This record gives sequence, structure tokens and C-alpha cells, in this order.
Amino acid sequence: MDRDLRLVMDRSSDEPLYMCIANAIVRDIRRGRLVAGTPMPGTRRLAATLGVHRNTTVAAYRELAGAGWIDTEPGRGTCITRRAMTPAASPATTRVTTTPYRLRSRAATTEEPRGDHTRMLALSHMPDPRLAPTVALARAYRRAMRQHRDVLDYANRRGSGMTFGHVRLREALAEMLNRTRGLVVDAANVLVTSGSQMALYLAALALVEPGDVIAVECMGYRPVWESLRLAGARVVPVPIDASGIDVDALRELASRLPLRAVYVTPAHQHPSGVALAPERRVALLDLASSAGFAVLEDDWDGDFDYDGERIEPLAALDRRGAVIHVGSLAKVLAPGIRIGYAVAPTAVLELMAERRCFIDRQGDHALDCAVSELLEDGELRRHVQRVRGIHRARRDALASALARELAGVVTFERPARGTAIWAHAPGMDVDAWHAAALLRGVSFSASREFDFADRPSRHARFGFAALDEDGLVEAVRRLAAAASDCAPRCVRAVRGDLCEPDLSRGRSYA
Amino acid sequence: MDRDLRLVMDRSSDEPLYMCIANAIVRDIRRGRLVAGTPMPGTRRLAATLGVHRNTTVAAYRELAGAGWIDTEPGRGTCITRRAMTPAASPATTRVTTTPYRLRSRAATTEEPRGDHTRMLALSHMPDPRLAPTVALARAYRRAMRQHRDVLDYANRRGSGMTFGHVRLREALAEMLNRTRGLVVDAANVLVTSGSQMALYLAALALVEPGDVIAVECMGYRPVWESLRLAGARVVPVPIDASGIDVDALRELASRLPLRAVYVTPAHQHPSGVALAPERRVALLDLASSAGFAVLEDDWDGDFDYDGERIEPLAALDRRGAVIHVGSLAKVLAPGIRIGYAVAPTAVLELMAERRCFIDRQGDHALDCAVSELLEDGELRRHVQRVRGIHRARRDALASALARELAGVVTFERPARGTAIWAHAPGMDVDAWHAAALLRGVSFSASREFDFADRPSRHARFGFAALDEDGLVEAVRRLAAAASDCAPRCVRAVRGDLCEPDLSRGRSYA
Repeated sequence: MDRDLRLVMDRSSDEPLYMCIANAIVRDIRRGRLVAGTPMPGTRRLAATLGVHRNTTVAAYRELAGAGWIDTEPGRGTCITRRAMTPAASPATTRVTTTPYRLRSRAATTEEPRGDHTRMLALSHMPDPRLAPTVALARAYRRAMRQHRDVLDYANRRGSGMTFGHVRLREALAEMLNRTRGLVVDAANVLVTSGSQMALYLAALALVEPGDVIAVECMGYRPVWESLRLAGARVVPVPIDASGIDVDALRELASRLPLRAVYVTPAHQHPSGVALAPERRVALLDLASSAGFAVLEDDWDGDFDYDGERIEPLAALDRRGAVIHVGSLAKVLAPGIRIGYAVAPTAVLELMAERRCFIDRQGDHALDCAVSELLEDGELRRHVQRVRGIHRARRDALASALARELAGVVTFERPARGTAIWAHAPGMDVDAWHAAALLRGVSFSASREFDFADRPSRHARFGFAALDEDGLVEAVRRLAAAASDCAPRCVRAVRGDLCEPDLSRGRSYA
Repeated sequence: MDRDLRLVMDRSSDEPLYMCIANAIVRDIRRGRLVAGTPMPGTRRLAATLGVHRNTTVAAYRELAGAGWIDTEPGRGTCITRRAMTPAASPATTRVTTTPYRLRSRAATTEEPRGDHTRMLALSHMPDPRLAPTVALARAYRRAMRQHRDVLDYANRRGSGMTFGHVRLREALAEMLNRTRGLVVDAANVLVTSGSQMALYLAALALVEPGDVIAVECMGYRPVWESLRLAGARVVPVPIDASGIDVDALRELASRLPLRAVYVTPAHQHPSGVALAPERRVALLDLASSAGFAVLEDDWDGDFDYDGERIEPLAALDRRGAVIHVGSLAKVLAPGIRIGYAVAPTAVLELMAERRCFIDRQGDHALDCAVSELLEDGELRRHVQRVRGIHRARRDALASALARELAGVVTFERPARGTAIWAHAPGMDVDAWHAAALLRGVSFSASREFDFADRPSRHARFGFAALDEDGLVEAVRRLAAAASDCAPRCVRAVRGDLCEPDLSRGRSYA
């Protein structure tokens, strides 16, 4: 091989140098680092690597060949011989799998779905990576590396320095947010993060001390609860109803616990899809200001509205700096593109950036610049429009298929925004249906996944972002078959229950 | 403009729709979202965006033009008029800079150096981004995005799923570590992280509960202490001497405090450059196993050794799974390339990966694949060899310049590895020298920066990675001038003190 072989030699021994080299190689064979058939460097190269005379490596190889450890064939070079290998020298026996120290316990996580994933049709709200603008992004990435050498440097060469992300991206995001979300911000109000999850984690790190509380919507998005807990927060649920989070319940909570923040999805509640009612928006911001807690607003699917009417984020109404607005480009570009952001008064972002510096020092500024280019030249805007049209068609295909195949089983409203349909299945054992569907090769979310109290599911969430129309139709066909599989077990209620209105105003999910 | 203008309209009002639109635009002008000169979309486009008839937007624009808010010129389109702007409508007055909630306090950080950064010569150990293989990396990145659509997806579509990084990179890193570091690991033992800092942060999150202790070398690397603290650890210093960390002091510490881990830089101590003596390596691993704590080994400059002799990492000696070995490609590729790794038994990595999932969900798998390609095709290996040669030349240039210009001021040994010279300046007030040097346009690290107790500096650390030979010579010239500037204030001791040996065995820095 033309590769360097680095050896650890015990030069303090009394043996001659060539024997030190030979012994080091034998030791590496014994512990499985060098296995049968491994090509060895030539004697000249090894001598250069080790900083010794070539005669020394020639002598070492002669020693090894004599003992049967290596073999040299003309034209093939030198290799470790097969008979050098003993069972004791195989890597499997030397790999350590236990630790002499105690580890912390795992967080409570839901089980992964079983079944054949390669053929599984996912009714998921997560975006379709096939739609990603990869060519434009790769081109922009190359340009960023060529044109801006600074993207390859530490953002701040002092060890304690912090960074807010590349300023070019912060400016482009501020412009985009002002234009599409009705905010009034500039680059100083924007912190770039590794996805919106990190923005929420950092916000919690900036806010909570041990024992402090962050309130969350219930039902809600479990990974964020875990993130807030990891940051030290005690997470307490607040019920939602058809007008969004119950602000009176939040007020009551704030009066008796050290509430530092509330995590909300006001434009389009995750998972139910309800919008926070206008009067509650005002009440929530007033309460946050008077009680002194932050509003963590997750604008998780803000780009996908289909019927023209726009819901303004809370941050656009906020005149007192109560809102930390969080979003991501992962949904519009691709999940693997880890660009998120937080928008807040600069003092908040400074604290978050300091925490981020201790976690992973800085983000990927080459990627920041590449994405800036897509924002600046309109490529991202055009891409969002394209994807919005695709999502609209997928929504319609899923809604039609559900109405056709599962009439009488689920009731739902066609959503005006987002990438999922939230359906009520009042007569079904939705958890049993979910399990039966996995066996049929289709996955969806049962509402238990979003429930703080882990109660049996009465709702199902069918995402339409990840499959094309044909895939959605086939997925619903499988859903219907799965519903038949588990009936009558799945069906718990009398037929008359099926039309029970679900999102009636004032009715609580929690 | 051809851009969408999204508006929040109060459609519940009794006014006709065109007035709702006009009012929404006026409101956006008043609060500074739309400023003088902003081009407006055409009436056709705005109608499409809002989902209204074009006659409605025409009527809205007529209303706005009549009131002087907008102006239409042939060939230029419609813009916000200048006279529409009042002082009250400028963005500066609407931006909020305070919060109604309380923030946590900042960590204690060192001040940023003042002075003209653009002309500052940094005697830094941090790598020179001009050496980065940008063309090869950008090409590999493009290929990764084209060939592997999975890199753009969530690594695990379940919300609670976790990821260890792209398996291709984990395999390539395992191969590299086995070959160059003498480890015996495979992909199951490798977790990809966002730089080594995140690997250490995650390890601490996997180990400590409130009140638990992580011991660190003193002197040592302050950003890691902050990282460990953020993860909940109580950080306690252990002295180093010329043989590395004092294992007896560590044993004593473990006997009276809940010690969960020790953070060490054994191959090349940061900042002093000493290597952990062989007998201490064995003693440290024995102690870790018997006392039940983890050894966090930071292989922070493992690729840069210049004189042929290799120091094996502790992980290569470890037979009991006590070591969590951490490293990074940032030093050999470029600081901005955020690829780090942790090597440990799989059970440890699972816990770290779970924590990571709650922090930022996953890393950048396109980058993972791009870097894998550089590892697989030997590009990275050749690059390391190139950079090693460049560093060796820079080390020699710096050592010669220091010996020439600062003889009698500093004493040092020419380091066999790493990217910095650790110099003793027994007669100097090094902190005053440091300040004087900044005014002369050269930065270095004074030892106070690495001292747990923040005592006055007696050592200086001169990095040679970031400047070429000419830059190094000029930097030392400025250093010498700065030393003259602040003498006699800088010089505290008698001349005879200058030759005092510094790294004599058993002498403690702490």
C-alpha cells in the first residue's frame, strides 16, 4: 500500500531498532489492527514514515517474513500472511463493549415502527427530499467556498468568541421574514441555528434555571418537550381547544409555578392544525408581558398556506419583545439542510449564541452562504411556490381519498395550511389501527404520540408531504384495508358517534 | 417587484375587500415593514397572491395612490412614495430591544482583544483556512447530493429517532483511526458530531447529574470547561507537571468527590505541550476502571507530529472501555468544516446520540458524505501530509525567530508535535507584554487564559499554524518591540532567573 503505516515503538527497550519495529508490527497483528491480507508499505516508505534508515526497515521485514508474519510476492508487494491470524487476534475479540463507569439513563422515547421500511408508505408531514433544489444548492456551496475564504475559518478566533451565523444569511433571512411573515427585523435580530430544534434548545438554556417551568401545548410535539427538558426545564402541559392554547389555564399556571416560557405553534397548531384565535393572541402577549415569561413561537410550517389567507405570526404583533420566534428552512429546502433561526431582541440572541458556542462552537458558514445565495437570487422563493403547488395537489388527493375510502370512519376538515390532515376517528381504536396499518405497509401518527398523558388515541394525523398523489391513494387504500383487518376490535363506539363534532369551540383536547 | 407581497388583512371588518387590502398596506408602511422606494407587486400578481379578483387590487392601488402612499411611474412600476415615510414609521422606532422576561446571566468569558483585527498577526494554533482543500471538498459535496438523496432526508423519520452520522463517514473514520491512531474500532464505535466540542458536550450530558464532578487539567482549555459546565458538571482542576496530569492528585479527588470523568489531552497537553508519561497512562486507566469514571481523551492535534515518533492515544491502550476518545477534522481540513467524532463503546454513543437528537436532531449528512470521499480516495491523507510539511517549516521559522529576537526573554523547547510553542518568560510580566503586543499588531495567548485560578501569566503560547514564514518572522519582530515597549515594567525578575528550567519533572503548574 502507498499509505503511511504509523507504529508505536518502545524505543526505551534494549533491543535494536529493527526489532522494535518488528515487535510493534507483531503487536498490531495480535490485537487485530493489522489483519490477514493487509498490504504493508514498502521498506523505503516505512523508513521515511518512521524517520529511520532504510536498512533498518529491510531488517525488520526480513525478521517478520522469517517468522511467517508477512509475505512478499513479486508485483504484489508485502502483505500480512493468512496464517498470522489466530482467533485471539481477530478484532471482534478485542473490541470492548462495556464501560467501567455508570451512564445516565435514556430518555423515555417511543418505539420505532417495525416492518419493512423500504416499502413502507409514510403518511408524514415531513418534506419530500426528492423536491430539494440540489443542483442550485451544490453550485451555491461551491461558489461560497471559492469566493469567501472566511467561511472556512473560525467565526471568531478567540476561544470564547461566539457567532450568530454568517451575516449574509442573517440579512437574507431578515429580508425574507419581513416580506413573507410581516416582521420588522434586521440582521441583528436573527440568530442562525442548526435547525429550529437547536433554536428552541438554546432559548430554553437562556431562560431556565433548575426548577423553572416551560409550558407546552397538549397535545403537542414530543421531541421539543425532550429538548426543553434536556435544557433543564420542567415541562408542564396546557390544554388546547378549537381556538388554540387555553390562555386562562396558562394564567392560572403562571400564578402558582415559576413559569419562564410557553412553547406555542399559533399559526397552525401541531398536531391539531387549529389557529390561535385573534383575541387569544392579544391575551397571550398581554399575559406574557405582565407575568414576565417568554413566548417561544414555532413557525414550523409557515410557508405552506394554500388558500390565500395569511395568518400573521405572534412576533409580528409583539411590541414588547415577549416573543422568541423560531423557524427553519428544512421544511422548504430539505430536512437534511440544517438551517434554522431564532428572531428576538439582540440581548436574548447574545445569550443563546454564547450557549451555542459552548455546544458546537459554530455552524457551517459555507452552507449559510450557499443558502443566502438561494434567498438573494429568488431561487428559494420560486422553490417555495413550486412546492406549495405540489403540496396543495397532494392535500387534495389525500382529502379525496380519505373521504372516498374512509367515510364513516374518520371526520376531518381540509386544512388551509400545513402538510397534514388531522382526523377524528371517534369509533376506532386508533392505536390498534396504527399497528394494523404498519403491517399493511403504511405509517401515520396516532394521537397518543402527541399526548402528554399518553392516553389511547382518538385522532389520527395523516401527512401528505412525503408521497406523491399515486402514493397517497395507495396509502389510503392500505389504511382502509387495515381498518377492516382490525374491525370489530378497532371499532369501539356506536355508529351514531361518528359524526360527533371534534373541533367545536371550547372543547378541550387535553 | 416580481416578489409576492403577503398581507395580513382583517377580513372580519365591514369594509369592502379593496379597503381591507389598502389598510393592510398602510399599516405595513406605518410600522416600517414597507419603506419609501419599496417596489410593489403588480395588481395582477397581488391579486393572485391574495386569492382575490384583479379588479379588487386595482381599486386598492387607486385608493393608495389617491392618498399619496404609492406612486406609479410608466416603466418603473409601483413604489411606496417618499412622502409616505414619517419619522414614526421608520423601522428603528419599532424595533424592540428589551424583554419583559428575565434572562439567565452570561458565562464568565475573557474579553475580546482590541485593536485593528484586519492587520493583526495572530500567533495562533488554529489552522490556516487558506490551506483548505476547497475544490475537492466542493466537488465531493455536489457528488454526495446527486448520488445520495438520503443525505437530504431526516436520518430517521420518527420524531424520537437518533442518528450517529452518515454510516459512510463512520466507516471511513474508523478505518482512518485504526490506521493512524492504532485503534481497533469499527463504525459501531464512531459517533459523528459537529466538531469535537459537541462530542465533549454530549459525553458530559451522558455522564453527569447535578453535583457530579468532571476533573480537568490545569492549566487547560477554557472553552471545554464552559462546555462541561453547561452540561451540568462541576469542573474541578487537577495539576499537571512535566509528566502530564498528576494521577495521585486525581486519585485523591476521586476519593472525596463524585467524580464522573476526567478531561485529558495526553498526547500533547493543551497548552503546555507535555506528553503524559507511560507509567501515568497505565495508572490513569487503572484508576478510571477501579474508581468508575470515564476518561475523556481529546486528540486535538493528533495529525501533526513532525519528528517520526508517534504517541499512541490512551484509547489504543484501553482494554476496559474507560476511554471516550474525541477528535476532529477541523484542524486538518478547515475550522469551518464542522466534523468531529467520539469513539467509545456503542452503549455510550447511543446515549450521546439520543442527547444530540434533542439538541439539533442530526448533523449535515451531505457534508458527512463529502468528507467520506476525501477520506476514501486518499485526498485527506495527502492533504495531511502536505499540511504537516507546511507546519514543520512554520515551526522551524518561529523557533528560529524567537531564539534570535527574544533570547534571554523566553525559554522554550522546539515541539515535536502540535501547532504552538509554549514558552516560559520567567522575568516578564506576560500580561503586560500581551497587551503591548496587541497594540503592536500581534496576538498570542498569555497563560492566564489557561489558568483555572486566573493567576498572572508567566508563560506565553505562540501558535504557528495561522501564519506563513514571513508572517511569523514579522510577528516575532513585533513581539520583541512590544517587549521593549513595556520593559522595565514587564521585567520582574533578575537576569539569573531567566534560565530556570521550566518543565522539570515533578514541578507543578497548578
